[in-house]
Amino acid sequence: MKVSLFSLFALSVAAGPLPSPGAKPSDVRNVIMMVSDGFGPASETFARAYVQQSDRFPMNYMSFLDELLIGSSRTRSSDSFVTDSAAGAVVFASARKTYNNAIGVDDNVKPIGTNMEGAHRLGYKTGLVVKSFITDATPSAFAAHAAARQMMDLIAEQMGGLTDLGQNVDLMFGGGRCRFIGNSTKGSCRTDDKDVWGEMGKKGWTLMSTNDEFKALSTSPKLPLMGLFDLDNVPYAMDYKINDVPTLPQMAKKAIDVLAEASKDSEQGFFMMIEGSRIDHAGHDNDVGTHFREIVEYWETIKLVSDYIDEHPDTVMVSTSDHETGGLGLGRNNQYWVYPLVYANQTMSQQVSCQNFLKLPMEKRGQYVTEVMLPVHLGLGNVTAAKASAVLKATNQSNCLLAMSEALAVDANIMWTTLGHTGVDVNIYAKGKHTQELAGNHENTDIGMWLTKMLGVDLNEATERVKDVNVFQYPYTKANSTYVFIPSLDYYHK
Amino acid sequence: MKVSLFSLFALSVAAGPLPSPGAKPSDVRNVIMMVSDGFGPASETFARAYVQQSDRFPMNYMSFLDELLIGSSRTRSSDSFVTDSAAGAVVFASARKTYNNAIGVDDNVKPIGTNMEGAHRLGYKTGLVVKSFITDATPSAFAAHAAARQMMDLIAEQMGGLTDLGQNVDLMFGGGRCRFIGNSTKGSCRTDDKDVWGEMGKKGWTLMSTNDEFKALSTSPKLPLMGLFDLDNVPYAMDYKINDVPTLPQMAKKAIDVLAEASKDSEQGFFMMIEGSRIDHAGHDNDVGTHFREIVEYWETIKLVSDYIDEHPDTVMVSTSDHETGGLGLGRNNQYWVYPLVYANQTMSQQVSCQNFLKLPMEKRGQYVTEVMLPVHLGLGNVTAAKASAVLKATNQSNCLLAMSEALAVDANIMWTTLGHTGVDVNIYAKGKHTQELAGNHENTDIGMWLTKMLGVDLNEATERVKDVNVFQYPYTKANSTYVFIPSLDYYHK
Repeated sequence: MKVSLFSLFALSVAAGPLPSPGAKPSDVRNVIMMVSDGFGPASETFARAYVQQSDRFPMNYMSFLDELLIGSSRTRSSDSFVTDSAAGAVVFASARKTYNNAIGVDDNVKPIGTNMEGAHRLGYKTGLVVKSFITDATPSAFAAHAAARQMMDLIAEQMGGLTDLGQNVDLMFGGGRCRFIGNSTKGSCRTDDKDVWGEMGKKGWTLMSTNDEFKALSTSPKLPLMGLFDLDNVPYAMDYKINDVPTLPQMAKKAIDVLAEASKDSEQGFFMMIEGSRIDHAGHDNDVGTHFREIVEYWETIKLVSDYIDEHPDTVMVSTSDHETGGLGLGRNNQYWVYPLVYANQTMSQQVSCQNFLKLPMEKRGQYVTEVMLPVHLGLGNVTAAKASAVLKATNQSNCLLAMSEALAVDANIMWTTLGHTGVDVNIYAKGKHTQELAGNHENTDIGMWLTKMLGVDLNEATERVKDVNVFQYPYTKANSTYVFIPSLDYYHK
Repeated sequence: MKVSLFSLFALSVAAGPLPSPGAKPSDVRNVIMMVSDGFGPASETFARAYVQQSDRFPMNYMSFLDELLIGSSRTRSSDSFVTDSAAGAVVFASARKTYNNAIGVDDNVKPIGTNMEGAHRLGYKTGLVVKSFITDATPSAFAAHAAARQMMDLIAEQMGGLTDLGQNVDLMFGGGRCRFIGNSTKGSCRTDDKDVWGEMGKKGWTLMSTNDEFKALSTSPKLPLMGLFDLDNVPYAMDYKINDVPTLPQMAKKAIDVLAEASKDSEQGFFMMIEGSRIDHAGHDNDVGTHFREIVEYWETIKLVSDYIDEHPDTVMVSTSDHETGGLGLGRNNQYWVYPLVYANQTMSQQVSCQNFLKLPMEKRGQYVTEVMLPVHLGLGNVTAAKASAVLKATNQSNCLLAMSEALAVDANIMWTTLGHTGVDVNIYAKGKHTQELAGNHENTDIGMWLTKMLGVDLNEATERVKDVNVFQYPYTKANSTYVFIPSLDYYHK
């Protein structure tokens, strides 16, 4: 039968040989995985073009990423040509294809060990630095095991070292503090009243939630350490001016310094995952102005990691995306031009602007759209009745985002194809020794296998250690969970 | 002033230093430039995904191109972020940015020498193999000089060696014979009655127009040689079954064999440009089924060139695109899947199908749409009233193409953003010695400079030799030509 034959091929590849443990190169000490979530080829082209125009850079200007381009990665998951960020992170974390929504589990919903767990056991200091919820798909794939990414209550407890899994991460910076607070407390987003934050404190975690605490942090704090600087996601770079939070480069720099200091006298170095999480979110919003500013912030993070590698050539880094988000097309309507500077005067993310709008009573919305959202938030010079009425008609966040997006996109001559993900190959960037192994076009699992090899991790042993971990969040079981997508390969093979 | 400052940067880069002449590597004899016109990152991803599903290949299957990926190229022209194919070819042909529409001329509409002219003068045998009109933008940029690509009457005479420019190409295979026939003859597309074909014959050209002649061609025919196998473009691979023409791989193989034989006893080898011209055309049609079949034919051509390099390691090859066409997004409507096999049963290009449709009287169109176009040409299983009426409403080629495109795209969950070009970076593929110089991200002029270096051409000398060539087709002059876009940098800098 046609379908099952191909499934056989697909699964046989997915379950292919892992790197032999102990083959770690002797000249590698520290390993940094950088994830630009939702960042496709057109995102880099647009961000570069904007900066070139805005800053009057010459035509051959290279971004910090451009200088490190070495290949591309295919992104499909085991059950769809278009991956989500869970399956898209498991390939880096565990070098295995799995189904969309899966966190640290295989196609049979069985736990699989991660590079981070394996590295921690070998004595590496480990870290996760993100702008999303720390329990979101990408970071949790490195240090949690759940049948579905939506089981964030369970994931928070696992990442906090409160379960049988033990503690595998020494440092976490990001957002999503609401998952660590019991639901009798204001601001919680848990489904239960468990005080994960308090329990972690009792276990010895250093915990922080403000930028002042972050700024005061020494390079040798007591580990493990967790800093969650927002109940929700860490704000977009576009919205930093109205929020007092550390930026992604600030968090990354601090994390590197702390983990380098903590590992300086040990045999092993550190292993970190740093994510430009919200490049993806702005793609979901079809908000180019916010999207490219997240990218520029990611470039700055790449730059500081790159500088670190220049000073510490025993550190290696790979940067890639789990998938593209939004399907950004740099041309529309048969017109042969794109004008990035349309986004020069945008002052607020469309997400926050639309959230504000939808909270307003109907009678105040007209004025807000014409006097604030379009001219001030988007920086639109010519507020037409058509653009205003398109936003005013919006009754939910998606409608509002699409209308806001179109208000500028028509002038810039760009167009998105979806509010979701796409399947286009994404770029691979790398710096340091042994990165030539990542040159050319790769299946995304190759990146996870490269990490495994650089770290000298034994993923089979790591899997053996987690095989009995509970991956279902009460009250969900494999049988009743509405979250779990049982792999059918239907989307790809229907 | 902001605009002029940036213009200065842009132009200063455009006029940057050329490679020193005579620096040709001693281990390179033959140079092959492959152009995949209108082929962006998503095009490769889609074509691979189709073939993987259709042929039940494993997940880690690599196309012949995938195996050769080494970098990416930015594609902007001197006057727009989104290039056309003229400016997009001049960067390969002459290593210079110029304005959209320009053929072998700079921003001041002055002729600039080409790598092919320089190579021919050095004694290389030269060839152009395309599926478009041989006078179309990409091939003509290598061997003609015109203020605008639309001046194809002039371009035909230049490429045929009938002007002061002399004869610079030894072999041409492609389409567009209508430009070589005077307009008193049926099938001509010239604006005058000049018999270019006949004049070329008198000058000693070997000329052919049928597949039978092509098949009968030995590997040592009398040069120069031109074979134009259609009055119009060479048909899409999708439509070969209704046309008796040589395919792109067949033309490429024959051209290599002929030029290798012709140059075997000389000091220099050969320099060719081979173009998958109609990958672009199918992108303009938003016709994915035809687009990916042109790509697969291009892969086959890459394979035979690659095999030739395996046998002749003194041959080097680079393959890239001038730009992406269509803005193909591999995801739409917030759905996380793409289903390539929707295009499995398409049997005719949308272009030909729509041309047939528009020739029909109104009373016959309904039946043609519901019984032929949708079920047979597109291979659509479920011909809905909505899809049929969308096509039936079409009153011109563009409307028809868009309706046909959508009929399958919604089922495949893909979407195009334009019928024109886009500005996304395109991939660079290469094989042979010295190709590591093309690794990473590049301005497109770097590819032309690499060719210059591999060939040992002196582009300044080549420019000196063509400086007085007439670049205006009667009755157009610089002053009155509606074709010439005088560079204003407006699109990019407005």
